[in-house]
Amino acid sequence: MLQQERWLSLQRKADTLWQRTWDRHLRLAVTGLARSGKTAFVTALIQQLEQAGFSARLPHWQVLQQGRLLGVQQVVQTHQHIPTFGYSQALSMLAADPPQWPEPTQTLSEIRLELRFRSQNLLRQKIGHDVCHLYLDIVDYPGEWLLDLPLLDLSYAQWNAQIREQLQSPQRRHLAEPWLKAGSRWSASQPFSSVMDEVKNISALYTQYLQDCRSQLGLQSIQPGRFVLPGEFAGAPMLQFVPWVWGLPAESSAHDSLYGLLQARYEAYKEHVVKQFYQKHFSGFDRQIVLVDCLQPLKVSREAIYDLRDTLGQLLQSFQYGNSHWWQRLFSPRIDKLLFVASKADHVTPEQHPALLSLLRELVHSGLSRARFEGVSLECMAMAAIRSSEYHQVDYQGQPLTVLHGVDLTGHELALFPGVIPARIPEPDFWRNSSLRLTDLRPPVWQSEQARPHIRLDQILEYLLGDKMQ
Amino acid sequence: MLQQERWLSLQRKADTLWQRTWDRHLRLAVTGLARSGKTAFVTALIQQLEQAGFSARLPHWQVLQQGRLLGVQQVVQTHQHIPTFGYSQALSMLAADPPQWPEPTQTLSEIRLELRFRSQNLLRQKIGHDVCHLYLDIVDYPGEWLLDLPLLDLSYAQWNAQIREQLQSPQRRHLAEPWLKAGSRWSASQPFSSVMDEVKNISALYTQYLQDCRSQLGLQSIQPGRFVLPGEFAGAPMLQFVPWVWGLPAESSAHDSLYGLLQARYEAYKEHVVKQFYQKHFSGFDRQIVLVDCLQPLKVSREAIYDLRDTLGQLLQSFQYGNSHWWQRLFSPRIDKLLFVASKADHVTPEQHPALLSLLRELVHSGLSRARFEGVSLECMAMAAIRSSEYHQVDYQGQPLTVLHGVDLTGHELALFPGVIPARIPEPDFWRNSSLRLTDLRPPVWQSEQARPHIRLDQILEYLLGDKMQ
Repeated sequence: MLQQERWLSLQRKADTLWQRTWDRHLRLAVTGLARSGKTAFVTALIQQLEQAGFSARLPHWQVLQQGRLLGVQQVVQTHQHIPTFGYSQALSMLAADPPQWPEPTQTLSEIRLELRFRSQNLLRQKIGHDVCHLYLDIVDYPGEWLLDLPLLDLSYAQWNAQIREQLQSPQRRHLAEPWLKAGSRWSASQPFSSVMDEVKNISALYTQYLQDCRSQLGLQSIQPGRFVLPGEFAGAPMLQFVPWVWGLPAESSAHDSLYGLLQARYEAYKEHVVKQFYQKHFSGFDRQIVLVDCLQPLKVSREAIYDLRDTLGQLLQSFQYGNSHWWQRLFSPRIDKLLFVASKADHVTPEQHPALLSLLRELVHSGLSRARFEGVSLECMAMAAIRSSEYHQVDYQGQPLTVLHGVDLTGHELALFPGVIPARIPEPDFWRNSSLRLTDLRPPVWQSEQARPHIRLDQILEYLLGDKMQ
Repeated sequence: MLQQERWLSLQRKADTLWQRTWDRHLRLAVTGLARSGKTAFVTALIQQLEQAGFSARLPHWQVLQQGRLLGVQQVVQTHQHIPTFGYSQALSMLAADPPQWPEPTQTLSEIRLELRFRSQNLLRQKIGHDVCHLYLDIVDYPGEWLLDLPLLDLSYAQWNAQIREQLQSPQRRHLAEPWLKAGSRWSASQPFSSVMDEVKNISALYTQYLQDCRSQLGLQSIQPGRFVLPGEFAGAPMLQFVPWVWGLPAESSAHDSLYGLLQARYEAYKEHVVKQFYQKHFSGFDRQIVLVDCLQPLKVSREAIYDLRDTLGQLLQSFQYGNSHWWQRLFSPRIDKLLFVASKADHVTPEQHPALLSLLRELVHSGLSRARFEGVSLECMAMAAIRSSEYHQVDYQGQPLTVLHGVDLTGHELALFPGVIPARIPEPDFWRNSSLRLTDLRPPVWQSEQARPHIRLDQILEYLLGDKMQ
């Protein structure tokens, strides 16, 4: 008897070992600038996976189509000290009456899913070990954090020069008035201790300026990124500095001068905020999806769309880690697939999707001109994680026209033709004569248990997970 | 000319070097359990220092009495990534109409003061280098964090046994009913993934229980301490566990069992929360002041005062770092002076202060019985950082009686004899026949620029800073 028990125990151990060898782990990072739809995307993704085989319709996801998916469930996350993604809160907001979009991403959170599936591997099938596990960590974080990477290459003086350049824009300059004026009495060499409360106040004005640039001008290039989402660092002095734009500092380096201290805080920010993020989090990501709202700048201005292009260019720098780049050695990132997604494709009619995708490609690829991607495959798609609209064809002056149906955020039902999306960054007169009618839509009324309709979420799944579920 | 300039520059360098050798740094940590008066103490301390030589009355602070103090000012804090203590917010709350106590401590914060003074050192006086600087870092943090130290010595099973022991108290058991009942259907060996949301909910019930123990029973022994003040860790799974009190786990160690996961989170909490605090912060403290509200348990119950005694005993363990203690090697703390202070001495009449001090001594010293302090000097005092009351003598049935005047939190003026404070932990019938009239008082109406009246803040200054300002 004992002999047999030992034999069984050995067998179990061998099985476990075998299983471990074949189990796969994938750390999928989800990001995007504010209001690009990150929380809705992660929520929809989890719900589709949990409902795969039941209510989810995911025809392009091969492991499901081939009947090899056995089940998906939420399991214990890898890092006990990282906040859990608020999946159940998001679901209950979507299921509220009226339905609401979930709370936006404030900080980094994660959630882990276990996907069980049958392998296509013949060897595994033969010996009866064909059930595999893919452990999928989904990590959600604000895209603004990636905009800080370029700071690592910039001294405080160089960063100041960049901001001074930005302030050439009259619109920006107008919004910057409050902090520019408040600091105009400052002298770079004055002792810091005389203006400590002022620095705090002016950095609050600077933060307000960054927020105004976003809300009033539709600009996304927020720097430093944590000023608008401070999280755990709220109240720390390293988040209280501003660029020095009041003339060049004469003798700048006295460490107890105002300039010296602003510089020290800038360096502390790089050290404790920027580097920490890349070392602790970014370096662990396997794949990255970046959500982009291309429609918003089309509503606003030419400056807004160029700003989005530049912002995406800045953001792409995080993935240009050829062997020669210095921070390849520092953070050793390992991302092998990078997917840019134009979100909110349900806000336009289906025949506009190719143009939307083409516009996204141009926005992304102009940032690529100076990039070198080694070992990273890059793809662009257009999608809606949760489809908030329906459409049908009507006859308009003898021509067929697709009309979108949805409910706007104030609860009014809409039936409209949103207009023609430009397939490239448009000329200035586009905004003068624009006939676009793009309105934010409320999520659909839906039974909470069932997966909601989407646009191309299955193609995204196939791109991100397909090769790991063979 | 150039020669002379070089000579002057060399001279300046020598001066700087000399200055650095003589400059002193002191990292003073301020803690205490909830509502012991930490924020008010730090605020009053800074204000008294800033007003030293002007409106402050600090007769027992020798450097000031001897006319050697030259000035005190706030300077740039040491750590740019640690939140700044909210001094100006606290001042404006105290100066509000009606005056309010400042917001309580939620997390660790710091502030740095520079104290300039003339040295008594004859050598320095002779060569004209008698102006010294003391850089004083004041670090404020919740005392509950210290209550977690004992966890480092306890396995999850040992901690469970302790909690089971605590639940012998009928009062605690009554408050624990909600989480005890919610977990009673659990089995230690069931797979964790089946109850993930439940664990989150029950740990929220457990947190509520800890808060109820404090608010309803006046008990302070909150464990784990971060459950009530999560700060940056809000939402992290390592703050979602409970003690296992539903019978002993049969086969406990499967890592994907419910018990296995609770255990893993307990260990993650020790690793990421407890150890991090001692390594990153506690090990840098030079001196520690612990504020204790001895009056609150006198109002409540015998159990509350014994709980305070035990809690102080737990808290004292952080300072018992003889060479033989294992965590002496891990964190290498360096505190050389430890001061326990009975706060709110202004809530009783002056002739009761000796009894209040004697009671504090008993509470602290019973925790000392098993302690060995090597190189740490321990002192006890009674004080009020901001005096909220005045008193005068009246004739009561032919006897002189001291009567306290103040304004309670609802704005009613009071004139009362608060009663006799027991000089030792009293017998049970003290609470049956108690004639104590202890009421929370509002801060005094005061001009914001001037230092407020206090009780023995100068003696505290002398004890904590005197030897560093010779």
